[in-house]
Amino acid sequence: MSRIAYVNGQYVPHAEAAVHIEDRGYQFADGVYEVCEVRDGALIDAPRHLARLWRSLKELRIRAPMGEAALRVVLRETVRRNRVRDGIVYLQVTRGVARRDHYFPSDATPPALVVTARAHDRAKMDAGAEAGIRVITVPENRWPRVDIKTVGLLPNVLVKQQAKEAGAKEAWYVDAEGYVTEGGSTNAWIVTQDDVIVTRPAESGVLRGVTRTTLFDLAEKLQMRIEERRFTVAEAKAAKEAFNTAATALVTPVVAIDGALVGEGRPGPVALGLRRRFHEFAERD
Amino acid sequence: MSRIAYVNGQYVPHAEAAVHIEDRGYQFADGVYEVCEVRDGALIDAPRHLARLWRSLKELRIRAPMGEAALRVVLRETVRRNRVRDGIVYLQVTRGVARRDHYFPSDATPPALVVTARAHDRAKMDAGAEAGIRVITVPENRWPRVDIKTVGLLPNVLVKQQAKEAGAKEAWYVDAEGYVTEGGSTNAWIVTQDDVIVTRPAESGVLRGVTRTTLFDLAEKLQMRIEERRFTVAEAKAAKEAFNTAATALVTPVVAIDGALVGEGRPGPVALGLRRRFHEFAERD
Repeated sequence: MSRIAYVNGQYVPHAEAAVHIEDRGYQFADGVYEVCEVRDGALIDAPRHLARLWRSLKELRIRAPMGEAALRVVLRETVRRNRVRDGIVYLQVTRGVARRDHYFPSDATPPALVVTARAHDRAKMDAGAEAGIRVITVPENRWPRVDIKTVGLLPNVLVKQQAKEAGAKEAWYVDAEGYVTEGGSTNAWIVTQDDVIVTRPAESGVLRGVTRTTLFDLAEKLQMRIEERRFTVAEAKAAKEAFNTAATALVTPVVAIDGALVGEGRPGPVALGLRRRFHEFAERD
Repeated sequence: MSRIAYVNGQYVPHAEAAVHIEDRGYQFADGVYEVCEVRDGALIDAPRHLARLWRSLKELRIRAPMGEAALRVVLRETVRRNRVRDGIVYLQVTRGVARRDHYFPSDATPPALVVTARAHDRAKMDAGAEAGIRVITVPENRWPRVDIKTVGLLPNVLVKQQAKEAGAKEAWYVDAEGYVTEGGSTNAWIVTQDDVIVTRPAESGVLRGVTRTTLFDLAEKLQMRIEERRFTVAEAKAAKEAFNTAATALVTPVVAIDGALVGEGRPGPVALGLRRRFHEFAERD
């Protein structure tokens, strides 16, 4: 079956799905995106993804391409047309097509909307994640507005590639004071020796991950101790466990940081437990 | 006459010029660009633009889409097909089309190349620039690799728009130590009270502008005093003159900084002189 993409009002074969060369997403990275998990045919945590999308658009003063209800219909329809039972749905909104000029185009310029969906092999994803991954640390070098989920991902691309070439899957950014901010495409977490789950406050240096937010709900309901505070690389290396979260990674145990094993170098019970119970608490739509 | 764009091997009507939604330029800002002036039908400083393009590609490990000679043919042909006598030619190279994933795609993925050209009204451009422009200053908030000319221009878009809304044309970035780095799309310069032309060293915080480099040649040949060193906003406000350079802006006098007039608030003789003599020294191709 061939894939279908939604592009500016039309469902088109993926192979032919195109945007104009003067779409500001292409020439200026002037756009934002979301990735939402699809599980058993349902969108996971869609309200939170859409709320974050609206926030990103507002911060950049990009008009919403349609209302939230209509956008949900497009997301679901794209999932349906691609017969995705387990996978992801991706959406991107840009400031639209206009003659190249840094300044915002006229208010009459419609924003652009692209939506794609693709299936993944859930068992394989789970097996990969549950084996644990290695991370490297890299100096934070992104602009300060990482709270906005923009498509300006080149810095992230470069550190993720650097991680891959170092035999790892993810790179954790470390700020000038030595604290971990987040991963190239995930939020970073540790579990301390006294079983406190720790992640950096979302107020600076990180994107407020939807999976991160849902994990707070989950930890609370499971009466686990969870704390928002900064942690250093040394603290992470000395932690009982470490893990990453993202809509696609869900909860992925980290077994080594810069080559140093975390705990015994195996996925720990806290991360694995959170991963396995995650969908009891996430919202299905 | 309708415009023509070059897109991945074909000359197509501009209105239909499109790239795939999974072009990494669109999803990751994983690409670089150049803008070259066209004057009297000739490309201005093309060798320097191409040398910089090759450097940008190398820094990001993106393959060149073709050799330099072939690329020059495409640039010239795009200019010719659009009948541009005075204007610009724009080129963009990205890491190509691949299933969305931060890591680099396989080496077999061909890079994407888009080239456009458009005419401008030279007399109008000159009149606009020679009237002088106002700039505002903004805190530097871009990633440190501004030496690479990437399409990740969202930070620049936002400050240029901020400038426009403040009644200015350009925003000068100011680093944490209070020194001007460069403009949102230009290099920044001052002329001191004792007639020394000053701009920040290209080693950190700025893109090595082609027009900037050519201006060094020009100043040398005209036996003007020119110096590479950092300068503060206060020094710029107290300068005799200030100006910006870029392939499209050429040399554009700055008459006010954050509302404070520079000199007498009129374009000065050094900036205007450099602007008028610029093409005696730039290379034509």
